[in-house]
Amino acid sequence: MPQTGVRKWLNEVIFGTDTPAGKAFDVFLIWAILASVALVLMVTVERVGSRHREVFFLLEWVFTGLFTVEYMLRIYCSVNRRAYIFSFYGLVDLMAILPSYLALIFTGASTLLVIRMLRVLRIFRILKLIHFTNDANILMRSLWQSRRRILVFYSSVLVLCIIFGAIMYLVEGPANGYTSIPKSVYWTIVTITTVGFGDITPQTSLGQTIASMTMLIGYSIIAVPTGIVTAELASEISRERSLRRCDNCSHAGHDADAEYCKHCGYKLAEERVLTRGH
Amino acid sequence: MPQTGVRKWLNEVIFGTDTPAGKAFDVFLIWAILASVALVLMVTVERVGSRHREVFFLLEWVFTGLFTVEYMLRIYCSVNRRAYIFSFYGLVDLMAILPSYLALIFTGASTLLVIRMLRVLRIFRILKLIHFTNDANILMRSLWQSRRRILVFYSSVLVLCIIFGAIMYLVEGPANGYTSIPKSVYWTIVTITTVGFGDITPQTSLGQTIASMTMLIGYSIIAVPTGIVTAELASEISRERSLRRCDNCSHAGHDADAEYCKHCGYKLAEERVLTRGH
Amino acid sequence: MPQTGVRKWLNEVIFGTDTPAGKAFDVFLIWAILASVALVLMVTVERVGSRHREVFFLLEWVFTGLFTVEYMLRIYCSVNRRAYIFSFYGLVDLMAILPSYLALIFTGASTLLVIRMLRVLRIFRILKLIHFTNDANILMRSLWQSRRRILVFYSSVLVLCIIFGAIMYLVEGPANGYTSIPKSVYWTIVTITTVGFGDITPQTSLGQTIASMTMLIGYSIIAVPTGIVTAELASEISRERSLRRCDNCSHAGHDADAEYCKHCGYKLAEERVLTRGH
Amino acid sequence: MPQTGVRKWLNEVIFGTDTPAGKAFDVFLIWAILASVALVLMVTVERVGSRHREVFFLLEWVFTGLFTVEYMLRIYCSVNRRAYIFSFYGLVDLMAILPSYLALIFTGASTLLVIRMLRVLRIFRILKLIHFTNDANILMRSLWQSRRRILVFYSSVLVLCIIFGAIMYLVEGPANGYTSIPKSVYWTIVTITTVGFGDITPQTSLGQTIASMTMLIGYSIIAVPTGIVTAELASEISRERSLRRCDNCSHAGHDADAEYCKHCGYKLAEERVLTRGH
Repeated sequence: MPQTGVRKWLNEVIFGTDTPAGKAFDVFLIWAILASVALVLMVTVERVGSRHREVFFLLEWVFTGLFTVEYMLRIYCSVNRRAYIFSFYGLVDLMAILPSYLALIFTGASTLLVIRMLRVLRIFRILKLIHFTNDANILMRSLWQSRRRILVFYSSVLVLCIIFGAIMYLVEGPANGYTSIPKSVYWTIVTITTVGFGDITPQTSLGQTIASMTMLIGYSIIAVPTGIVTAELASEISRERSLRRCDNCSHAGHDADAEYCKHCGYKLAEERVLTRGH
Repeated sequence: MPQTGVRKWLNEVIFGTDTPAGKAFDVFLIWAILASVALVLMVTVERVGSRHREVFFLLEWVFTGLFTVEYMLRIYCSVNRRAYIFSFYGLVDLMAILPSYLALIFTGASTLLVIRMLRVLRIFRILKLIHFTNDANILMRSLWQSRRRILVFYSSVLVLCIIFGAIMYLVEGPANGYTSIPKSVYWTIVTITTVGFGDITPQTSLGQTIASMTMLIGYSIIAVPTGIVTAELASEISRERSLRRCDNCSHAGHDADAEYCKHCGYKLAEERVLTRGH
Repeated sequence: MPQTGVRKWLNEVIFGTDTPAGKAFDVFLIWAILASVALVLMVTVERVGSRHREVFFLLEWVFTGLFTVEYMLRIYCSVNRRAYIFSFYGLVDLMAILPSYLALIFTGASTLLVIRMLRVLRIFRILKLIHFTNDANILMRSLWQSRRRILVFYSSVLVLCIIFGAIMYLVEGPANGYTSIPKSVYWTIVTITTVGFGDITPQTSLGQTIASMTMLIGYSIIAVPTGIVTAELASEISRERSLRRCDNCSHAGHDADAEYCKHCGYKLAEERVLTRGH
Repeated sequence: MPQTGVRKWLNEVIFGTDTPAGKAFDVFLIWAILASVALVLMVTVERVGSRHREVFFLLEWVFTGLFTVEYMLRIYCSVNRRAYIFSFYGLVDLMAILPSYLALIFTGASTLLVIRMLRVLRIFRILKLIHFTNDANILMRSLWQSRRRILVFYSSVLVLCIIFGAIMYLVEGPANGYTSIPKSVYWTIVTITTVGFGDITPQTSLGQTIASMTMLIGYSIIAVPTGIVTAELASEISRERSLRRCDNCSHAGHDADAEYCKHCGYKLAEERVLTRGH
């Protein structure tokens, strides 16, 4: 089905970011998203929430109405409707309005409140707006390529936490707050990640010695995920640099923010989103 | 001794991961291990443990029986029995069943409970299943190669902790919770690793100033193990990349996840586990 | 307007660091700045502040007088007066003296006290003194070049914190200290950054499980900004090295602290502050 | 003065590590140092210290006697006596015995106790024993070369802490534990380094928001020292690798742990301690 004039224009405004109208729409939308997220945050604050109940109720429906209209327009003007509805953003857009309507039917609304918070995911539309996709891509690709090493690392950390947790349960015992092995494992995770809440702390000398070992190990293995990501990120960045090629003299190796070829001064092409297969 | 048909088939199923039956066995085993670890964790939870005592007792023996059968089959079908029994996994497999039998004889079971937790080490069999051995190898090799630098680093940190601990004991004294030098050293380790439980905190101005210095030093030296591991890991990854070689055009330098040669399009050989001597 | 003898000499002393008098002036100024910052810190200490009220009052005016004279001399002897007054350092210099005069008119001085603290920014003049500008530049440039990746990272962390905060509010609820979603988000930030104050801690098993996940995620993503900065810094350092060029044999690639060309032994030129466009 | 037979032999045993006797002496010494440090740690533990007072007293003098004899022998057999006495290790060796003698004259011994702890510095002799000097050198050189960047970084962090501390003092005030600006700065350092004791925590919404910003900033700048050290360490390691040269085919670029040339199979020379000027 070829797009008619209105649909095509709507598509450019709503999905595009290149036309002034498209940019203005996106900026407006970002502010609406941020305001609606702030609204849900504010509702739960006792002091504020109970005083301005009617204002919040009104604003909630203003945003719900706004997002409903936007959602319908998106469905109306998208080239492939089914693809949009079942895409990640399509589902997030639906989740941003559904809880408000469901709250009319069901009354135990606190679970719905949390689902409503998922509209915060729409913030990622910002990335599209300000041309950060390439940087986000590099980060995602680095994380994705190190996924197996990170999984190996997490398995080891978990096994370590379970063993140390069991030992601490044995050494300190329920009397000092280590009431069960799961709680001891929780304490070990709190300690090995260097969070250290301090709600449970070792009281015996032996316990404190083992806790010290746990911390020093945690301190050391904090290096491993950093090492994994850094090594991958450095190779991604150097790969991206070597892929930037001048159209005139065909020298490669230009910086990500270079505008002119450093060999012949020719204007470099717009930075491309580089896919793996490139 | 040449393997008979049954033993050979059992060996493939139990030790191998390439046949569908071998894969299914490993997947089943992983779930059994995870369930039995979760069981031991649950037993120590007061509320749950006391209510379903019989169920837990029954399940414990189901898993013990299962792992006993598995252990015996492994001994039966392994090519080199002695090698398996005294290998790391062989000992872990034994430790996963022994405590349950020992608990029949001895009654003070809480130490046995912790030994039983060691069956969590069997989780590492997962690595074999999902072909993560190479990534685990790179991690292990990076850590192994930086062992001396990490040891030098740990000696320095410990010396620093002991000296700062002694100073804090002098400055704050037993009245503010620093009851002995070992406890002060424990506090210094808690602080320098940025865990910061908060069960002991400096109360005097001088103590808080020295504590601030301790933290800033800790904040800085957190960089050192990270730097050590990252530098080693980066060189391991680039080494591994340069070792991947096309069998057709013999160009090296392929990515770890490349499937075809980027120069001639020839299918690359399966990723090999690279030993140092290569 | 060409500079007269006195103005030129004053300019050299006050703005320059190359002449002995200019160096001495800067060293004296640094100590005056440090002392005046220490003074404001001390004033707020109950025990000290109330006893020596007159001494502090006197010293405050000595420093204010000193900085006023310095500020006026700077305006007098600068080549481009308007440029100095509206430069970063010009405004900081003004802010270092203004609050003291304003305190004569207004009495609610605690806000002024904080503005007065901004004179601590003048410490950065030290950098100029000890030729650290190049190192500061490398750091700033690395941070500036990774600004987009860091922004993408922060957006993701904030979205994560809001979602986890909302879940924790639902799971733990006001009874366990999670009185509102903003407070839960605050707790999530405290946890994900591994600070872990311990003023609010999860009490339920489910809450502790989700908290463990939060910590492990935080532990892992602590790697991302490190990776971003490290990768950029490494490439900045290698770039800087490759830009250092011998004036004799024109070989590049000299270390930042090399004094002689490693190829021909010719004395290398003073390390230059390298701008991007170079 | 040429060394006589006994002095020369003593020198080899005490200062050297190559002969079996020299190695045995060093190993014995390390254990004596570790034991004497453990002794001082134990003395301050109330429960242990008061019960075995005589044993501790005796052991203290055994170690003091031992270290006195060692110190005198070192002076006797060193080639350049003055150089040894005023070297770092010479002073540490003196400090390891002096406090015990001083305690006979003065009685307020707790300060002496801390000085006595400085004997822990002798542990660094271990490094000499186990040929870690090269790795320690690489670490020291990396830290030394990044000293200026680390200083720039620390100045910035301190300025940041003072400004944030002053703001928190204004926002939270003495009523919530921020009794003075120095204490607020202490809290900011505790927070920005992600230690987070939790003895002082923000109570107001505005305070918690500023605290969140402080943490996120701290979380991000934790990356900077790591980046500095990693970048320097990586370049040190690659520099060291490129300096390892085969004596046969003169190819460079061998790994730090390589034993044979990877080009011609010739036995590589022992790893040298590389000085900068190399």
